[in-house]
Amino acid sequence: MSKYQALLTRLGDVVSLREAMAVLGYDQQTQMPAGAAEGRARQLSTLARMEHEIFTDDATKHLIDDAENEVDDVYESDAVSLLRVVKQDYEEATKFPASFVEEWAKETTLAHETWVHARANKDFKAFESTLERIMVLAHKSAEFLGYKEHPYDALLGRFERGMTTAEVDRIFEGHRPRLVDLISRISQKPQVDDSPLHHHFEQDKQREFAMNVVQRFGFDTHRGVQAVSVHPFCTSFGVNDVRITTRFEDNFLNPALFGMMHEAGHAMYEQGVAQHLDGTMLSGGTSLGVHESQSRMWENVVGRSKGFWSWALPMLKETFPQLADVSLDAFYKAINKVERSFIRVEADEATYNLHIILRFGIERDLLGGKVAVKDLPKVWNERFEASFGITPPHDGLGVLQDVHWSSGLVGYFPTYALGNLLSVQYYNTAVAQHPSLPDEIANGEFGTLLGWLHDNIHAHGRKFTTAELTKRVTGGEIESDSYIAYLENKLGEVYGL
Amino acid sequence: MSKYQALLTRLGDVVSLREAMAVLGYDQQTQMPAGAAEGRARQLSTLARMEHEIFTDDATKHLIDDAENEVDDVYESDAVSLLRVVKQDYEEATKFPASFVEEWAKETTLAHETWVHARANKDFKAFESTLERIMVLAHKSAEFLGYKEHPYDALLGRFERGMTTAEVDRIFEGHRPRLVDLISRISQKPQVDDSPLHHHFEQDKQREFAMNVVQRFGFDTHRGVQAVSVHPFCTSFGVNDVRITTRFEDNFLNPALFGMMHEAGHAMYEQGVAQHLDGTMLSGGTSLGVHESQSRMWENVVGRSKGFWSWALPMLKETFPQLADVSLDAFYKAINKVERSFIRVEADEATYNLHIILRFGIERDLLGGKVAVKDLPKVWNERFEASFGITPPHDGLGVLQDVHWSSGLVGYFPTYALGNLLSVQYYNTAVAQHPSLPDEIANGEFGTLLGWLHDNIHAHGRKFTTAELTKRVTGGEIESDSYIAYLENKLGEVYGL
Repeated sequence: MSKYQALLTRLGDVVSLREAMAVLGYDQQTQMPAGAAEGRARQLSTLARMEHEIFTDDATKHLIDDAENEVDDVYESDAVSLLRVVKQDYEEATKFPASFVEEWAKETTLAHETWVHARANKDFKAFESTLERIMVLAHKSAEFLGYKEHPYDALLGRFERGMTTAEVDRIFEGHRPRLVDLISRISQKPQVDDSPLHHHFEQDKQREFAMNVVQRFGFDTHRGVQAVSVHPFCTSFGVNDVRITTRFEDNFLNPALFGMMHEAGHAMYEQGVAQHLDGTMLSGGTSLGVHESQSRMWENVVGRSKGFWSWALPMLKETFPQLADVSLDAFYKAINKVERSFIRVEADEATYNLHIILRFGIERDLLGGKVAVKDLPKVWNERFEASFGITPPHDGLGVLQDVHWSSGLVGYFPTYALGNLLSVQYYNTAVAQHPSLPDEIANGEFGTLLGWLHDNIHAHGRKFTTAELTKRVTGGEIESDSYIAYLENKLGEVYGL
Repeated sequence: MSKYQALLTRLGDVVSLREAMAVLGYDQQTQMPAGAAEGRARQLSTLARMEHEIFTDDATKHLIDDAENEVDDVYESDAVSLLRVVKQDYEEATKFPASFVEEWAKETTLAHETWVHARANKDFKAFESTLERIMVLAHKSAEFLGYKEHPYDALLGRFERGMTTAEVDRIFEGHRPRLVDLISRISQKPQVDDSPLHHHFEQDKQREFAMNVVQRFGFDTHRGVQAVSVHPFCTSFGVNDVRITTRFEDNFLNPALFGMMHEAGHAMYEQGVAQHLDGTMLSGGTSLGVHESQSRMWENVVGRSKGFWSWALPMLKETFPQLADVSLDAFYKAINKVERSFIRVEADEATYNLHIILRFGIERDLLGGKVAVKDLPKVWNERFEASFGITPPHDGLGVLQDVHWSSGLVGYFPTYALGNLLSVQYYNTAVAQHPSLPDEIANGEFGTLLGWLHDNIHAHGRKFTTAELTKRVTGGEIESDSYIAYLENKLGEVYGL
């Protein structure tokens, strides 16, 4: 057996353990009874420890080094790509002392409960000291990882390998004023009526319709399953086992319908990774930003387009006769309503990135020592007012709204906004290469788009970084002009700007 | 840290891996998409290999040996019991060479598919050579395990530690003629009408009613969940996470109703193990026979009793008005109908053990070299005719009906019959100590019975063997007189013998 084969075998165990952990996590969020939490934590921590031990062992390093002498030098070949990616993974994983990993896991597990109560009671003080400890750990973590310019670079890089604070700042500042301006112009126009989305909709029928849509998109139920959970998510246990979950509301169509399109976008990415990469460390999406580009493309660029609904609305009306009198134009406007609101997860396409840019700035300044945890409510509200023109009435609708910090996820938020930008850049490239795409979508045909995504993005798995992939696909870099143009065009029509 | 503590820690990893494997198995049977089979096999085989490596490592043996010098000498203390049980587990696990384990896994995985097709085509020849190889492996396995008198002892002992072929033979031959006689007398009486069980019953309502019943029994949904699967089963990932599954038929009440009581019986055993044994190798039921005693007690001794239905039938009628005109007497007779039939899993309480005794004799004679695989259809049909007075029209209703052999499970069948015998022995003991029990059941109160089972059987987990436990509980040994008396009494009334 070659050293490369031996490495693959060793890493195969790591992948299998990670996939098993993902199954346990999925079960936890979809089925597990409440009383089982402690046992599940025990099972997961055992698997996590074994996974970490096997992966970070010196034997892995030696196999990587030896294997490098065996493989060709084609940058994008499976072997060269695997070694490149695994080396980076290995270096990252071995930077943290075991004691720190344990402290981190313990602190964030406890923090979650504290945050849940603090948010419920709109009481930032109850979360403050916990968040202070987490930020100290985030700082330490940046020091372990190392960085060139800004400690935030290190945290960002865990979710978007190679991305820097300066680059994100440039991209974000490049479109923030234009978003503010767009939203301001919209606010001066007659507002959109979204009451058609707030009828009573039977959950069974919501599920059936949304599943029909995402299967038509190309979500493969031979290799995927849909279930119900409080917080919708997508997870995968390999290329051929991808799960999406849905949250239903009886009186609001959006959470299940657009939520399922969103998760199916993630799922089709995972299902589209080349079969021969299954079970290797090249399997899965390359970054959170690219992942989000897929979910947002299907949810928004396709799923909130007029063409799509010219095909889908008649079927929706068959499912829900209460919508019989709603015109395509009225429905299209309703699902594209823009509104200044406090909660990120409920935000529309125009305001969403502003929510993210706010969080990015705050995280960067926390890491840079320019903002103290104790001042967060004040800073949050001031900056929110500056971007949105409204002030959260309490911290539950402000600084306490997101789960991320309590889970130790600092540096994660920017990927959401990058995903929005990329969704339009990738889609525009696909249309440039296949001008018939919009017409196909208006006829309920999605094969060309999905095939293009499979070939150009999904199949590669983790071979290329976001920047490399974007260069290959679009010929350029991640940028915000395309997204702004997309919003101006779409919302210009909706609001008659 | 003491050596005993170190051993507990090491074994804790083994238990966590086993529990994780059980989660993956449960997901596989309840949710996993068809295309994921290969990936799941990869994940499971990785975990199984790690579990086996950790458990059978010399380090485990050394810790066991060292720990033995630290603990007290109280036979039933946690520490002494754990060491006793783990030593036996360890010795058993290390008896098989890794190459044999691999061959076994491979052969039985392939055999399953072969058996499925052979049964569907009623074609024993298509399964014959596969079954021959499995029996060769079963033989080898008996040699690896070692035995005193009969190679079948070794196989039996894997499912009922300490049980011998001679003992099973004595117990089975002790009641076989009496079963044959009872069934013969019943067949001469007017037969029971079970048409009330064959109405159309909505699945949602079946589920709701059966769940109400088993929750009333004491199945704890804070630490348990019910799901749907093709083959009903119970599995547990620790004391606080026990899953049961159900198969529904639209036009037959029994599979879901009595099936759920049965699986809940298993589940309450797992949930009743003492909390401080959770995560240790003493957690779980002590043997398949004792496990089956719990499922059969709740399904049959309680669930098919007149007292229970005097309480439950009015509620069942509320759920299913189509039963409004069925009297308690008629319903009681319907659910206790005795019928000579070909299929074990559909058998009633009187004929069930005859199905098992047939299989036991055949397995014993296969292992003893008295019956050849190629003669099985002939032997099966002759012996079936001798016990039941009818001959299977084809092998699909005969020798090919059970999945067990294709999975390598030789020596498993007897535990079903032992469970039936024990269910009545244990129940009678409980009634002797709590004479009000039958009246409580007739009032829908099950707390005394469940509490007694928890204290006397469940809490101990794997501390005692079936024989030890039965001695502690009943003061005697496993025997068939009680079961026969129970059947004579119940079916005497139903059939007016």
